[in-house]
Amino acid sequence: MNWNHVDPAKVHRLFYPQVPVIVTVERKGRVGAMPAIWCIPLSFKPPLIGLAIAPEHETYNMILETQAFAVNWLDYSHADQVGELGEISGKEYAEKLAAVALTAVKGMENSPPLIQEASAVLECRTRESYRTGTHELIIAEVLGAYAADSFSDYWDFSQYNALLYSGTLTNGKKSWIFMSLQGTTKRVPLEHKT
Amino acid sequence: MNWNHVDPAKVHRLFYPQVPVIVTVERKGRVGAMPAIWCIPLSFKPPLIGLAIAPEHETYNMILETQAFAVNWLDYSHADQVGELGEISGKEYAEKLAAVALTAVKGMENSPPLIQEASAVLECRTRESYRTGTHELIIAEVLGAYAADSFSDYWDFSQYNALLYSGTLTNGKKSWIFMSLQGTTKRVPLEHKT
Repeated sequence: MNWNHVDPAKVHRLFYPQVPVIVTVERKGRVGAMPAIWCIPLSFKPPLIGLAIAPEHETYNMILETQAFAVNWLDYSHADQVGELGEISGKEYAEKLAAVALTAVKGMENSPPLIQEASAVLECRTRESYRTGTHELIIAEVLGAYAADSFSDYWDFSQYNALLYSGTLTNGKKSWIFMSLQGTTKRVPLEHKT
Repeated sequence: MNWNHVDPAKVHRLFYPQVPVIVTVERKGRVGAMPAIWCIPLSFKPPLIGLAIAPEHETYNMILETQAFAVNWLDYSHADQVGELGEISGKEYAEKLAAVALTAVKGMENSPPLIQEASAVLECRTRESYRTGTHELIIAEVLGAYAADSFSDYWDFSQYNALLYSGTLTNGKKSWIFMSLQGTTKRVPLEHKT
């Protein structure tokens, strides 16, 4: 294989496609939500996960204060909403989920709100967090996990058409690039910012 | 959406599909290699990555001692080899890459060996590591990154058919489940262990 040098600022894109999640959080009755791409399991037992997010986000501050958040998987049919959610700020929209036509439902163990349209959800409690360059890595324990019928020990992908994120185009009109497991590609133009 | 409760031991599978990488390392002239599923970017600048692996692996010990490793992306055409690499132990096979018909080539900055058949590679230096339950989370800086022509700021997926891992079937004959971006699925039976 002949390789070309990759610009250090683009290294993260080599990891794509990745399945994005929506992180939800609640503070003083206000619901925050944002998509996150950099999220993986870190342990089988106890079930731990790692979530890296940029600390500029309002959602990050809300997690820091409440030490609790939920992880929600929305499938390919919700690609537009995931993209939009990445562009609106919690400072402008008091209820970000409602702003993109998603529904907040009460968590099952007094946890942050979950997204009703999600195919799977995790209720998490923050354990530790570390600053890693531009991002903050949050390590959290999964207290509760719930999934649609398409998951039974494994995803069967019959109903759940996983959403795959492969980057954000920034030349010209900014847009998110999503793919499905069936090879379809969708660009979600970002209207809220340039 | 109606959700079912998910067994805590299966929470990690909700994150799938994920693109696996092959981690390579060299100690005293001996090359170690293993697939890893839990690997994400953690920072744009400097480019940092997080890699979670089980400390029982010989490869983990080699990384711990040398503080250096490489990340290699093999595409769908190499699914069988990725699966096999997960099952053979460095204790049995002195040269794991050769055992699955992959080729070790010298790294570009005096780094661990890279896999010649890889579509992209990273040369990494360990910064810190944290124990997270069953796994060890290694945070590393990317010192060098190289990719095939199919990557130019973004993957165009024309030549690079990303390999997607969606779990290991353990009932009956053990096998790894892989998918491609074109919706094809492949099970790689694991012959080396039950």
